Amino acid sequence: MARIVECIPNFSEGRNKVVIEKIVDAVRNAEGIKLLDYSSDSDHNRTVVTFFGTPERVEQVILDMAAKVYENIDMTLQQGAHPRMGALDVVPFVPISEVTMDECVALAKRVGNEIASKFDVPVYLYEKAASAPHRENLAVVRKGQYEGFFEKIKEDKWAPDYGKAEVNVKGGCVAIGARVPLVAFNVNLGTDNIEIADKIAKTVRNLGGGLRFVKAMGVKLEDRNVAQVSMNLVNYEKTAVYRAFEMVKMEAKRYGVPVIGSEVIGLVPMEALIQCAEYYLQIENFSMDQILEKRIWE
Amino acid sequence: MARIVECIPNFSEGRNKVVIEKIVDAVRNAEGIKLLDYSSDSDHNRTVVTFFGTPERVEQVILDMAAKVYENIDMTLQQGAHPRMGALDVVPFVPISEVTMDECVALAKRVGNEIASKFDVPVYLYEKAASAPHRENLAVVRKGQYEGFFEKIKEDKWAPDYGKAEVNVKGGCVAIGARVPLVAFNVNLGTDNIEIADKIAKTVRNLGGGLRFVKAMGVKLEDRNVAQVSMNLVNYEKTAVYRAFEMVKMEAKRYGVPVIGSEVIGLVPMEALIQCAEYYLQIENFSMDQILEKRIWE
Repeated sequence: MARIVECIPNFSEGRNKVVIEKIVDAVRNAEGIKLLDYSSDSDHNRTVVTFFGTPERVEQVILDMAAKVYENIDMTLQQGAHPRMGALDVVPFVPISEVTMDECVALAKRVGNEIASKFDVPVYLYEKAASAPHRENLAVVRKGQYEGFFEKIKEDKWAPDYGKAEVNVKGGCVAIGARVPLVAFNVNLGTDNIEIADKIAKTVRNLGGGLRFVKAMGVKLEDRNVAQVSMNLVNYEKTAVYRAFEMVKMEAKRYGVPVIGSEVIGLVPMEALIQCAEYYLQIENFSMDQILEKRIWE
Repeated sequence: MARIVECIPNFSEGRNKVVIEKIVDAVRNAEGIKLLDYSSDSDHNRTVVTFFGTPERVEQVILDMAAKVYENIDMTLQQGAHPRMGALDVVPFVPISEVTMDECVALAKRVGNEIASKFDVPVYLYEKAASAPHRENLAVVRKGQYEGFFEKIKEDKWAPDYGKAEVNVKGGCVAIGARVPLVAFNVNLGTDNIEIADKIAKTVRNLGGGLRFVKAMGVKLEDRNVAQVSMNLVNYEKTAVYRAFEMVKMEAKRYGVPVIGSEVIGLVPMEALIQCAEYYLQIENFSMDQILEKRIWE
Protein backbone atom coordinates (compact mmCIF):
# COMPACT_ATOMS: atom_id res chain seq x y z
CA MET A 1 0.00 0.00 0.00
CA ALA A 2 1.25 3.46 -0.78
CA ARG A 3 1.56 6.48 1.52
CA ILE A 4 -1.77 8.23 1.20
CA VAL A 5 -3.19 11.51 2.47
CA GLU A 6 -6.75 12.66 1.93
CA CYS A 7 -7.41 16.35 1.36
CA ILE A 8 -10.88 17.90 1.49
CA PRO A 9 -10.60 21.57 0.49
CA ASN A 10 -13.72 23.75 0.71
CA PHE A 11 -13.91 26.83 -1.50
CA SER A 12 -16.44 29.66 -1.56
CA GLU A 13 -18.13 29.23 -4.93
CA GLY A 14 -21.11 26.93 -5.39
CA ARG A 15 -23.02 28.62 -8.20
CA ASN A 16 -20.83 29.53 -11.18
CA LYS A 17 -20.20 26.20 -12.92
CA VAL A 18 -17.48 27.60 -15.17
CA VAL A 19 -15.47 28.79 -12.19
CA ILE A 20 -16.10 25.58 -10.23
CA GLU A 21 -14.90 23.40 -13.10
CA LYS A 22 -11.81 25.56 -13.64
CA ILE A 23 -10.84 25.11 -10.00
CA VAL A 24 -11.60 21.39 -9.86
CA ASP A 25 -9.62 20.88 -13.07
CA ALA A 26 -6.47 21.58 -11.07
CA VAL A 27 -7.18 18.36 -9.17
CA ARG A 28 -8.91 16.27 -11.81
CA ASN A 29 -6.04 16.35 -14.26
CA ALA A 30 -3.22 16.03 -11.73
CA GLU A 31 -0.89 13.08 -12.10
CA GLY A 32 -0.88 10.59 -9.22
CA ILE A 33 -3.97 12.16 -7.67
CA LYS A 34 -7.39 10.58 -7.38
CA LEU A 35 -10.33 12.98 -7.36
CA LEU A 36 -12.92 11.11 -5.36
CA ASP A 37 -15.78 13.52 -5.30
CA TYR A 38 -16.80 17.17 -5.46
CA SER A 39 -20.16 18.66 -4.68
CA SER A 40 -21.43 22.22 -4.88
CA ASP A 41 -24.34 23.76 -3.03
CA SER A 42 -25.81 26.94 -4.43
CA ASP A 43 -27.58 28.02 -1.21
CA HIS A 44 -24.32 27.59 0.66
CA ASN A 45 -22.43 28.98 -2.35
CA ARG A 46 -19.66 26.54 -1.60
CA THR A 47 -17.92 23.50 -3.09
CA VAL A 48 -16.31 20.59 -1.24
CA VAL A 49 -13.64 18.59 -3.05
CA THR A 50 -12.22 15.26 -1.90
CA PHE A 51 -9.00 13.87 -3.30
CA PHE A 52 -6.16 11.48 -2.40
CA GLY A 53 -2.52 11.05 -3.15
CA THR A 54 0.96 10.83 -1.66
CA PRO A 55 1.82 13.71 0.70
CA GLU A 56 4.19 15.15 -1.94
CA ARG A 57 1.62 15.11 -4.73
CA VAL A 58 -1.16 16.42 -2.49
CA GLU A 59 1.05 19.32 -1.43
CA GLN A 60 1.68 20.35 -5.02
CA VAL A 61 -1.91 19.93 -6.12
CA ILE A 62 -3.50 21.90 -3.29
CA LEU A 63 -1.19 24.80 -4.19
CA ASP A 64 -2.21 24.56 -7.85
CA MET A 65 -5.83 24.53 -6.78
CA ALA A 66 -5.30 27.51 -4.46
CA ALA A 67 -3.89 29.49 -7.41
CA LYS A 68 -7.10 28.85 -9.38
CA VAL A 69 -9.26 29.76 -6.38
CA TYR A 70 -7.53 33.10 -5.83
CA GLU A 71 -7.65 33.89 -9.55
CA ASN A 72 -11.37 33.24 -9.81
CA ILE A 73 -13.11 34.10 -6.55
CA ASP A 74 -13.60 37.60 -5.19
CA MET A 75 -14.79 37.64 -1.59
CA THR A 76 -16.06 41.20 -1.87
CA LEU A 77 -18.76 39.79 -4.18
CA GLN A 78 -19.38 36.45 -2.44
CA GLN A 79 -22.41 35.64 -0.29
CA GLY A 80 -23.98 32.40 0.88
CA ALA A 81 -25.65 30.55 3.75
CA HIS A 82 -22.52 28.73 4.90
CA PRO A 83 -20.04 30.47 7.24
CA ARG A 84 -16.73 31.19 5.46
CA MET A 85 -13.56 33.14 6.09
CA GLY A 86 -12.03 33.15 2.62
CA ALA A 87 -12.12 32.16 -1.04
CA LEU A 88 -10.21 29.00 -0.16
CA ASP A 89 -12.00 28.46 3.12
CA VAL A 90 -10.80 25.27 4.83
CA VAL A 91 -8.13 22.72 3.92
CA PRO A 92 -7.93 19.62 6.15
CA PHE A 93 -5.35 16.88 5.61
CA VAL A 94 -6.26 13.39 6.82
CA PRO A 95 -3.77 10.52 7.21
CA ILE A 96 -5.10 7.43 5.42
CA SER A 97 -2.32 4.93 4.97
CA GLU A 98 1.33 4.72 5.99
CA VAL A 99 1.26 8.38 6.96
CA THR A 100 1.23 9.62 10.55
CA MET A 101 -0.82 12.48 11.97
CA ASP A 102 2.48 14.27 12.64
CA GLU A 103 3.30 14.11 8.94
CA CYS A 104 -0.11 15.62 8.14
CA VAL A 105 0.53 18.38 10.66
CA ALA A 106 3.89 19.08 8.99
CA LEU A 107 2.15 19.06 5.60
CA ALA A 108 -0.47 21.55 6.86
CA LYS A 109 2.31 23.83 8.08
CA ARG A 110 4.27 23.69 4.84
CA VAL A 111 1.17 24.39 2.78
CA GLY A 112 0.13 27.18 5.17
CA ASN A 113 3.51 28.83 4.85
CA GLU A 114 3.45 28.56 1.06
CA ILE A 115 -0.08 29.92 0.70
CA ALA A 116 0.69 32.90 2.90
CA SER A 117 3.83 33.80 0.97
CA LYS A 118 2.63 33.00 -2.56
CA PHE A 119 -0.87 34.47 -2.37
CA ASP A 120 -0.51 36.97 0.47
CA VAL A 121 -3.40 35.35 2.36
CA PRO A 122 -3.32 35.05 6.20
CA VAL A 123 -3.34 31.39 7.32
CA TYR A 124 -4.75 29.88 10.53
CA LEU A 125 -3.73 26.38 11.56
CA TYR A 126 -6.53 24.35 13.20
CA GLU A 127 -7.34 20.95 14.78
CA LYS A 128 -4.23 18.79 15.20
CA ALA A 129 -2.11 21.47 13.49
CA ALA A 130 -3.34 24.27 15.80
CA SER A 131 -0.66 26.43 17.40
CA ALA A 132 -2.74 26.91 20.57
CA PRO A 133 -5.71 25.08 22.17
CA HIS A 134 -8.19 27.89 21.43
CA ARG A 135 -7.48 27.48 17.73
CA GLU A 136 -8.29 23.77 17.53
CA ASN A 137 -12.00 24.11 16.82
CA LEU A 138 -12.67 25.27 13.26
CA ALA A 139 -16.00 26.89 14.20
CA VAL A 140 -14.23 29.04 16.78
CA VAL A 141 -11.44 30.00 14.38
CA ARG A 142 -13.94 30.96 11.66
CA LYS A 143 -16.27 32.89 14.00
CA GLY A 144 -17.00 36.38 12.66
CA GLN A 145 -16.47 35.14 9.12
CA TYR A 146 -14.82 37.01 6.26
CA GLU A 147 -16.45 40.31 7.18
CA GLY A 148 -15.49 40.04 10.84
CA PHE A 149 -11.84 39.17 10.21
CA PHE A 150 -10.95 42.73 9.29
CA GLU A 151 -11.22 43.42 13.05
CA LYS A 152 -10.56 39.95 14.51
CA ILE A 153 -7.18 39.63 12.81
CA LYS A 154 -5.89 42.65 14.76
CA GLU A 155 -6.41 40.89 18.12
CA ASP A 156 -3.21 39.32 19.46
CA LYS A 157 -5.16 36.16 20.21
CA TRP A 158 -6.08 35.87 16.53
CA ALA A 159 -2.86 36.82 14.81
CA PRO A 160 -2.47 34.49 11.82
CA ASP A 161 0.01 31.60 11.97
CA TYR A 162 1.45 32.60 8.59
CA GLY A 163 1.25 35.88 6.67
CA LYS A 164 0.83 39.41 7.97
CA ALA A 165 -2.11 40.44 10.19
CA GLU A 166 -4.09 41.93 7.34
CA VAL A 167 -7.01 40.32 5.52
CA ASN A 168 -6.49 39.82 1.79
CA VAL A 169 -9.52 41.76 0.58
CA LYS A 170 -10.19 39.59 -2.45
CA GLY A 171 -9.07 36.24 -1.00
CA GLY A 172 -9.96 36.58 2.71
CA CYS A 173 -8.18 34.23 5.12
CA VAL A 174 -7.90 30.43 5.20
CA ALA A 175 -7.90 27.65 7.82
CA ILE A 176 -5.50 24.79 7.20
CA GLY A 177 -5.35 21.75 9.45
CA ALA A 178 -4.87 18.04 10.05
CA ARG A 179 -7.48 15.68 11.50
CA VAL A 180 -8.61 12.05 11.66
CA PRO A 181 -11.32 10.97 9.22
CA LEU A 182 -14.86 12.00 10.18
CA VAL A 183 -17.63 9.43 10.31
CA ALA A 184 -21.07 10.84 9.57
CA PHE A 185 -23.46 8.48 11.34
CA ASN A 186 -27.19 9.06 11.87
CA VAL A 187 -29.61 7.06 13.99
CA ASN A 188 -33.28 6.96 13.07
CA LEU A 189 -35.90 6.90 15.81
CA GLY A 190 -39.33 5.33 15.85
CA THR A 191 -40.97 8.72 16.29
CA ASP A 192 -41.60 11.88 14.28
CA ASN A 193 -40.95 14.04 17.35
CA ILE A 194 -37.84 16.09 16.59
CA GLU A 195 -37.74 17.38 20.16
CA ILE A 196 -36.93 13.88 21.37
CA ALA A 197 -34.16 13.56 18.77
CA ASP A 198 -32.81 16.90 19.90
CA LYS A 199 -32.86 15.96 23.58
CA ILE A 200 -31.04 12.70 22.85
CA ALA A 201 -28.48 14.54 20.69
CA LYS A 202 -27.77 16.92 23.54
CA THR A 203 -27.01 14.12 26.01
CA VAL A 204 -24.93 12.06 23.61
CA ARG A 205 -22.63 14.82 22.41
CA ASN A 206 -19.49 16.12 24.07
CA LEU A 207 -20.98 19.59 24.61
CA GLY A 208 -23.78 18.09 26.72
CA GLY A 209 -21.55 15.93 28.90
CA GLY A 210 -21.78 12.95 26.56
CA LEU A 211 -19.13 11.23 24.47
CA ARG A 212 -15.88 13.12 23.96
CA PHE A 213 -15.68 12.91 20.14
CA VAL A 214 -19.34 13.14 19.19
CA LYS A 215 -21.10 16.14 17.68
CA ALA A 216 -24.85 15.67 17.39
CA MET A 217 -28.11 17.36 16.61
CA GLY A 218 -31.73 16.37 16.10
CA VAL A 219 -33.11 16.56 12.57
CA LYS A 220 -36.36 15.59 10.90
CA LEU A 221 -36.45 13.37 7.79
CA GLU A 222 -39.46 15.03 6.21
CA ASP A 223 -40.02 12.45 3.48
CA ARG A 224 -40.12 9.56 5.98
CA ASN A 225 -41.65 11.52 8.86
CA VAL A 226 -38.90 10.22 11.13
CA ALA A 227 -36.84 12.06 13.74
CA GLN A 228 -33.11 11.42 13.57
CA VAL A 229 -30.06 11.91 15.77
CA SER A 230 -27.51 13.18 13.26
CA MET A 231 -23.90 12.75 14.41
CA ASN A 232 -20.37 13.53 13.40
CA LEU A 233 -17.90 11.19 15.02
CA VAL A 234 -14.72 13.21 14.91
CA ASN A 235 -12.42 10.52 16.29
CA TYR A 236 -13.77 7.02 15.73
CA GLU A 237 -10.60 5.48 17.13
CA LYS A 238 -11.37 6.90 20.56
CA THR A 239 -15.17 7.14 20.43
CA ALA A 240 -16.25 4.08 18.48
CA VAL A 241 -19.37 4.03 16.30
CA TYR A 242 -21.00 1.27 18.38
CA ARG A 243 -20.62 3.34 21.53
CA ALA A 244 -22.44 6.30 20.02
CA PHE A 245 -25.10 3.93 18.67
CA GLU A 246 -25.66 2.17 22.00
CA MET A 247 -25.78 5.46 23.83
CA VAL A 248 -28.49 6.83 21.53
CA LYS A 249 -30.43 3.60 22.09
CA MET A 250 -30.03 3.92 25.84
CA GLU A 251 -31.20 7.52 25.94
CA ALA A 252 -34.10 6.80 23.58
CA LYS A 253 -35.44 4.28 26.08
CA ARG A 254 -36.42 6.98 28.53
CA TYR A 255 -38.91 8.24 25.94
CA GLY A 256 -40.11 4.76 25.07
CA VAL A 257 -38.76 5.33 21.58
CA PRO A 258 -37.12 2.48 19.64
CA VAL A 259 -34.16 2.81 17.26
CA ILE A 260 -35.43 1.79 13.84
CA GLY A 261 -32.25 2.07 11.80
CA SER A 262 -29.12 4.03 11.09
CA GLU A 263 -27.16 5.39 8.16
CA VAL A 264 -23.56 6.00 7.30
CA ILE A 265 -23.20 9.07 5.11
CA GLY A 266 -20.44 9.11 2.53
CA LEU A 267 -17.16 7.34 3.11
CA VAL A 268 -16.16 5.48 6.25
CA PRO A 269 -12.78 4.01 7.17
CA MET A 270 -12.90 0.22 7.23
CA GLU A 271 -11.66 0.11 10.81
CA ALA A 272 -14.58 2.18 12.13
CA LEU A 273 -16.98 -0.63 11.16
CA ILE A 274 -14.63 -3.55 11.88
CA GLN A 275 -14.41 -2.26 15.48
CA CYS A 276 -18.19 -2.65 15.72
CA ALA A 277 -18.09 -6.24 14.47
CA GLU A 278 -15.37 -6.93 17.06
CA TYR A 279 -17.51 -5.48 19.83
CA TYR A 280 -20.79 -7.19 19.01
CA LEU A 281 -19.23 -10.55 18.15
CA GLN A 282 -17.00 -10.30 21.25
CA ILE A 283 -13.95 -11.17 19.15
CA GLU A 284 -10.81 -11.62 21.25
CA ASN A 285 -7.36 -10.49 20.07
CA PHE A 286 -8.37 -9.37 16.61
CA SER A 287 -5.79 -7.62 14.47
CA MET A 288 -6.51 -5.50 11.40
CA ASP A 289 -3.77 -7.53 9.70
CA GLN A 290 -6.26 -10.39 9.59
CA ILE A 291 -8.27 -8.49 7.01
CA LEU A 292 -7.63 -10.30 3.75
CA GLU A 293 -7.80 -7.18 1.57
CA LYS A 294 -5.36 -5.35 3.77
CA ARG A 295 -2.80 -8.10 3.22
CA ILE A 296 -3.31 -8.06 -0.50
CA TRP A 297 -3.19 -4.31 -0.84
CA GLU A 298 -0.35 -3.54 1.53
CA MET B 1 -7.35 -2.95 -7.84
CA ALA B 2 -5.85 -5.78 -9.79
CA ARG B 3 -7.41 -9.12 -10.70
CA ILE B 4 -6.52 -11.40 -7.82
CA VAL B 5 -6.96 -15.11 -7.08
CA GLU B 6 -5.99 -16.78 -3.84
CA CYS B 7 -4.60 -20.30 -3.96
CA ILE B 8 -4.21 -22.50 -0.86
CA PRO B 9 -2.46 -25.72 -1.91
CA ASN B 10 -2.04 -28.45 0.72
CA PHE B 11 0.78 -30.95 0.25
CA SER B 12 1.58 -34.15 2.15
CA GLU B 13 4.87 -33.31 3.84
CA GLY B 14 5.02 -31.58 7.21
CA ARG B 15 8.24 -32.98 8.70
CA ASN B 16 11.18 -32.76 6.32
CA LYS B 17 12.16 -29.08 6.34
CA VAL B 18 14.49 -29.39 3.37
CA VAL B 19 11.70 -30.78 1.20
CA ILE B 20 9.15 -28.27 2.51
CA GLU B 21 11.41 -25.31 1.73
CA LYS B 22 12.23 -26.66 -1.74
CA ILE B 23 8.54 -26.85 -2.54
CA VAL B 24 7.66 -23.46 -1.03
CA ASP B 25 10.56 -21.89 -2.94
CA ALA B 26 8.57 -22.39 -6.14
CA VAL B 27 6.09 -19.86 -4.76
CA ARG B 28 8.34 -17.62 -2.70
CA ASN B 29 10.56 -16.59 -5.55
CA ALA B 30 7.86 -16.31 -8.21
CA GLU B 31 7.42 -12.95 -9.91
CA GLY B 32 4.09 -11.20 -9.37
CA ILE B 33 3.11 -13.64 -6.63
CA LYS B 34 2.70 -12.85 -2.95
CA LEU B 35 3.36 -15.73 -0.55
CA LEU B 36 1.16 -14.89 2.40
CA ASP B 37 1.79 -17.76 4.71
CA TYR B 38 2.76 -21.40 4.97
CA SER B 39 2.52 -23.66 7.97
CA SER B 40 3.55 -27.25 8.50
CA ASP B 41 2.23 -29.70 11.06
CA SER B 42 4.35 -32.72 11.83
CA ASP B 43 1.54 -34.79 13.40
CA HIS B 44 -0.57 -34.18 10.32
CA ASN B 45 2.55 -34.47 8.14
CA ARG B 46 1.13 -31.77 5.94
CA THR B 47 1.85 -28.20 4.83
CA VAL B 48 -0.66 -25.53 3.86
CA VAL B 49 0.54 -22.69 1.62
CA THR B 50 -1.39 -19.47 0.92
CA PHE B 51 -0.50 -17.20 -1.97
CA PHE B 52 -2.05 -14.59 -4.24
CA GLY B 53 -1.63 -13.29 -7.74
CA THR B 54 -3.34 -12.72 -11.06
CA PRO B 55 -5.07 -15.83 -12.46
CA GLU B 56 -2.34 -16.14 -15.11
CA ARG B 57 0.54 -16.01 -12.61
CA VAL B 58 -1.21 -18.30 -10.13
CA GLU B 59 -1.77 -20.89 -12.88
CA GLN B 60 1.92 -20.95 -13.76
CA VAL B 61 3.13 -21.01 -10.16
CA ILE B 62 0.89 -23.81 -8.96
CA LEU B 63 2.22 -25.95 -11.84
CA ASP B 64 5.80 -25.11 -10.85
CA MET B 65 4.97 -26.02 -7.27
CA ALA B 66 3.31 -29.26 -8.36
CA ALA B 67 6.52 -30.25 -10.18
CA LYS B 68 8.49 -29.83 -6.94
CA VAL B 69 5.89 -31.78 -4.97
CA TYR B 70 5.95 -34.76 -7.32
CA GLU B 71 9.75 -34.75 -7.44
CA ASN B 72 10.11 -34.78 -3.66
CA ILE B 73 7.19 -36.64 -2.07
CA ASP B 74 6.63 -40.38 -2.29
CA MET B 75 3.17 -41.44 -1.08
CA THR B 76 4.29 -45.04 -0.56
CA LEU B 77 6.38 -43.71 2.36
CA GLN B 78 4.03 -41.00 3.65
CA GLN B 79 1.94 -41.30 6.81
CA GLY B 80 0.19 -38.75 9.03
CA ALA B 81 -2.89 -37.93 11.07
CA HIS B 82 -4.58 -35.83 8.38
CA PRO B 83 -6.62 -37.54 5.65
CA ARG B 84 -4.91 -37.18 2.24
CA MET B 85 -5.32 -38.58 -1.24
CA GLY B 86 -2.02 -37.54 -2.79
CA ALA B 87 1.34 -35.79 -2.57
CA LEU B 88 -0.29 -32.61 -3.78
CA ASP B 89 -3.50 -33.16 -1.88
CA VAL B 90 -5.90 -30.26 -2.37
CA VAL B 91 -5.72 -27.10 -4.50
CA PRO B 92 -8.56 -24.59 -4.03
CA PHE B 93 -8.77 -21.35 -6.03
CA VAL B 94 -10.63 -18.47 -4.39
CA PRO B 95 -11.78 -15.30 -6.24
CA ILE B 96 -10.62 -12.23 -4.31
CA SER B 97 -10.87 -9.19 -6.52
CA GLU B 98 -12.14 -8.50 -10.02
CA VAL B 99 -12.29 -12.22 -10.72
CA THR B 100 -15.52 -14.22 -10.89
CA MET B 101 -16.17 -17.66 -9.46
CA ASP B 102 -16.64 -18.88 -13.05
CA GLU B 103 -13.13 -17.75 -13.87
CA CYS B 104 -11.82 -19.68 -10.86
CA VAL B 105 -13.72 -22.76 -11.99
CA ALA B 106 -12.15 -22.39 -15.45
CA LEU B 107 -8.75 -21.97 -13.80
CA ALA B 108 -9.28 -25.13 -11.72
CA LYS B 109 -10.16 -27.05 -14.88
CA ARG B 110 -7.13 -25.81 -16.83
CA VAL B 111 -4.79 -26.64 -13.95
CA GLY B 112 -6.48 -30.02 -13.46
CA ASN B 113 -6.02 -30.87 -17.12
CA GLU B 114 -2.38 -29.79 -17.06
CA ILE B 115 -1.53 -31.70 -13.88
CA ALA B 116 -3.10 -34.89 -15.22
CA SER B 117 -1.21 -34.71 -18.50
CA LYS B 118 2.15 -33.40 -17.20
CA PHE B 119 2.48 -35.53 -14.08
CA ASP B 120 0.22 -38.46 -14.90
CA VAL B 121 -1.81 -37.92 -11.72
CA PRO B 122 -5.62 -38.45 -11.67
CA VAL B 123 -7.48 -35.22 -10.90
CA TYR B 124 -10.86 -34.74 -9.15
CA LEU B 125 -12.67 -31.42 -9.45
CA TYR B 126 -14.53 -30.39 -6.28
CA GLU B 127 -16.75 -27.65 -4.76
CA LYS B 128 -17.79 -25.09 -7.36
CA ALA B 129 -15.68 -26.84 -10.00
CA ALA B 130 -17.25 -30.27 -9.34
CA SER B 131 -18.53 -32.18 -12.39
CA ALA B 132 -21.39 -33.74 -10.39
CA PRO B 133 -23.17 -32.93 -7.12
CA HIS B 134 -21.74 -35.95 -5.28
CA ARG B 135 -18.24 -34.56 -5.94
CA GLU B 136 -18.78 -31.14 -4.38
CA ASN B 137 -17.80 -32.04 -0.83
CA LEU B 138 -14.04 -32.50 -0.44
CA ALA B 139 -14.41 -34.89 2.50
CA VAL B 140 -16.60 -37.18 0.36
CA VAL B 141 -14.20 -37.02 -2.59
CA ARG B 142 -11.21 -37.82 -0.38
CA LYS B 143 -12.94 -40.62 1.54
CA GLY B 144 -10.85 -43.80 1.55
CA GLN B 145 -7.69 -41.74 1.23
CA TYR B 146 -4.59 -42.57 -0.81
CA GLU B 147 -4.71 -46.26 0.12
CA GLY B 148 -8.41 -46.61 -0.72
CA PHE B 149 -8.16 -44.94 -4.11
CA PHE B 150 -6.59 -47.96 -5.76
CA GLU B 151 -10.11 -49.51 -5.56
CA LYS B 152 -12.29 -46.36 -5.48
CA ILE B 153 -10.88 -45.03 -8.76
CA LYS B 154 -12.24 -48.05 -10.62
CA GLU B 155 -15.87 -47.24 -9.72
CA ASP B 156 -17.70 -45.40 -12.51
CA LYS B 157 -18.95 -42.94 -9.93
CA TRP B 158 -15.38 -42.07 -9.01
CA ALA B 159 -13.67 -41.95 -12.39
CA PRO B 160 -11.27 -38.98 -12.31
CA ASP B 161 -12.17 -35.78 -14.17
CA TYR B 162 -8.73 -35.72 -15.83
CA GLY B 163 -6.17 -38.45 -16.34
CA LYS B 164 -6.66 -42.19 -16.58
CA ALA B 165 -8.45 -44.23 -13.90
CA GLU B 166 -5.24 -45.41 -12.29
CA VAL B 167 -3.62 -44.05 -9.14
CA ASN B 168 -0.11 -42.66 -9.60
CA VAL B 169 1.65 -44.84 -7.02
CA LYS B 170 4.18 -42.22 -5.98
CA GLY B 171 1.98 -39.11 -6.36
CA GLY B 172 -1.51 -40.44 -5.55
CA CYS B 173 -4.46 -38.37 -6.76
CA VAL B 174 -5.35 -34.71 -6.26
CA ALA B 175 -8.50 -32.63 -5.66
CA ILE B 176 -8.64 -29.28 -7.45
CA GLY B 177 -11.48 -26.86 -6.96
CA ALA B 178 -12.88 -23.35 -6.65
CA ARG B 179 -14.64 -21.93 -3.62
CA VAL B 180 -15.48 -18.72 -1.74
CA PRO B 181 -13.15 -17.72 1.08
CA LEU B 182 -13.58 -19.67 4.32
CA VAL B 183 -14.03 -17.86 7.60
CA ALA B 184 -12.72 -19.79 10.60
CA PHE B 185 -14.76 -18.49 13.53
CA ASN B 186 -14.88 -19.96 17.03
CA VAL B 187 -17.19 -19.09 19.89
CA ASN B 188 -16.02 -19.58 23.48
CA LEU B 189 -18.49 -20.74 26.10
CA GLY B 190 -18.62 -20.00 29.81
CA THR B 191 -18.17 -23.68 30.62
CA ASP B 192 -15.47 -26.35 30.43
CA ASN B 193 -18.04 -28.95 29.38
CA ILE B 194 -17.11 -30.05 25.88
CA GLU B 195 -20.31 -32.07 25.57
CA ILE B 196 -22.31 -28.86 25.64
CA ALA B 197 -20.07 -27.34 22.95
CA ASP B 198 -20.55 -30.46 20.89
CA LYS B 199 -24.33 -30.43 21.25
CA ILE B 200 -24.47 -26.78 20.22
CA ALA B 201 -22.17 -27.46 17.25
CA LYS B 202 -24.49 -30.22 16.09
CA THR B 203 -27.56 -27.98 16.06
CA VAL B 204 -25.82 -25.01 14.44
CA ARG B 205 -24.24 -26.85 11.54
CA ASN B 206 -25.81 -27.79 8.23
CA LEU B 207 -25.48 -31.51 8.89
CA GLY B 208 -27.65 -31.20 12.01
CA GLY B 209 -30.40 -29.15 10.39
CA GLY B 210 -28.76 -25.83 11.24
CA LEU B 211 -27.30 -23.17 9.00
CA ARG B 212 -26.64 -24.11 5.39
CA PHE B 213 -22.99 -23.01 5.14
CA VAL B 214 -21.73 -23.80 8.63
CA LYS B 215 -19.46 -26.68 9.62
CA ALA B 216 -19.00 -26.97 13.36
CA MET B 217 -17.62 -29.13 16.14
CA GLY B 218 -17.04 -28.85 19.86
CA VAL B 219 -13.45 -28.54 21.08
CA LYS B 220 -11.77 -27.91 24.41
CA LEU B 221 -9.23 -25.13 24.91
CA GLU B 222 -7.09 -26.99 27.42
CA ASP B 223 -4.97 -24.01 28.47
CA ARG B 224 -8.02 -21.89 29.32
CA ASN B 225 -10.24 -24.74 30.42
CA VAL B 226 -12.96 -23.46 28.12
CA ALA B 227 -15.28 -25.34 25.76
CA GLN B 228 -15.55 -23.89 22.29
CA VAL B 229 -17.81 -24.20 19.27
CA SER B 230 -15.31 -24.25 16.42
CA MET B 231 -16.81 -23.32 13.05
CA ASN B 232 -15.92 -23.07 9.40
CA LEU B 233 -18.22 -20.67 7.58
CA VAL B 234 -17.92 -21.88 4.03
CA ASN B 235 -20.01 -19.14 2.43
CA TYR B 236 -20.11 -15.99 4.52
CA GLU B 237 -22.06 -14.17 1.83
CA LYS B 238 -25.04 -16.45 2.36
CA THR B 239 -24.56 -17.49 5.98
CA ALA B 240 -23.25 -14.38 7.70
CA VAL B 241 -20.90 -14.52 10.69
CA TYR B 242 -23.40 -12.74 12.97
CA ARG B 243 -26.04 -15.32 12.19
CA ALA B 244 -23.78 -18.19 13.25
CA PHE B 245 -22.77 -16.22 16.36
CA GLU B 246 -26.34 -15.45 17.40
CA MET B 247 -27.40 -19.02 16.80
CA VAL B 248 -24.66 -20.38 19.06
CA LYS B 249 -25.76 -17.86 21.72
CA MET B 250 -29.36 -18.93 21.35
CA GLU B 251 -28.60 -22.63 21.65
CA ALA B 252 -26.22 -22.03 24.58
CA LYS B 253 -29.11 -20.51 26.52
CA ARG B 254 -30.83 -23.84 26.91
CA TYR B 255 -27.84 -24.99 28.96
CA GLY B 256 -27.68 -21.75 30.92
CA VAL B 257 -24.25 -21.19 29.40
CA PRO B 258 -23.09 -17.69 28.39
CA VAL B 259 -20.94 -16.82 25.40
CA ILE B 260 -17.73 -15.32 26.78
CA GLY B 261 -15.94 -14.43 23.57
CA SER B 262 -15.06 -15.45 20.05
CA GLU B 263 -12.07 -15.64 17.75
CA VAL B 264 -11.39 -15.23 14.07
CA ILE B 265 -8.61 -17.55 12.95
CA GLY B 266 -6.31 -16.39 10.18
CA LEU B 267 -7.52 -14.14 7.42
CA VAL B 268 -11.05 -12.88 6.97
CA PRO B 269 -12.54 -10.97 4.03
CA MET B 270 -13.41 -7.42 5.03
CA GLU B 271 -17.01 -7.86 3.94
CA ALA B 272 -17.62 -10.76 6.35
CA LEU B 273 -17.11 -8.39 9.31
CA ILE B 274 -18.62 -5.28 7.72
CA GLN B 275 -21.85 -7.29 7.31
CA CYS B 276 -21.89 -7.80 11.08
CA ALA B 277 -21.47 -4.08 11.77
CA GLU B 278 -24.34 -3.45 9.35
CA TYR B 279 -26.55 -5.91 11.18
CA TYR B 280 -25.88 -4.81 14.75
CA LEU B 281 -25.89 -1.09 13.97
CA GLN B 282 -29.03 -1.56 11.83
CA ILE B 283 -27.41 0.41 9.00
CA GLU B 284 -29.80 1.05 6.11
CA ASN B 285 -28.69 1.00 2.47
CA PHE B 286 -25.01 0.51 3.10
CA SER B 287 -22.75 -0.10 0.13
CA MET B 288 -19.23 -1.54 0.26
CA ASP B 289 -18.24 1.36 -1.99
CA GLN B 290 -18.56 3.58 1.08
CA ILE B 291 -15.48 1.92 2.54
CA LEU B 292 -12.74 4.51 2.23
CA GLU B 293 -9.95 2.00 1.63
CA LYS B 294 -11.89 0.31 -1.12
CA ARG B 295 -12.15 3.60 -2.99
CA ILE B 296 -8.46 4.28 -2.61
CA TRP B 297 -7.36 0.84 -3.63
CA GLU B 298 -9.71 0.18 -6.49
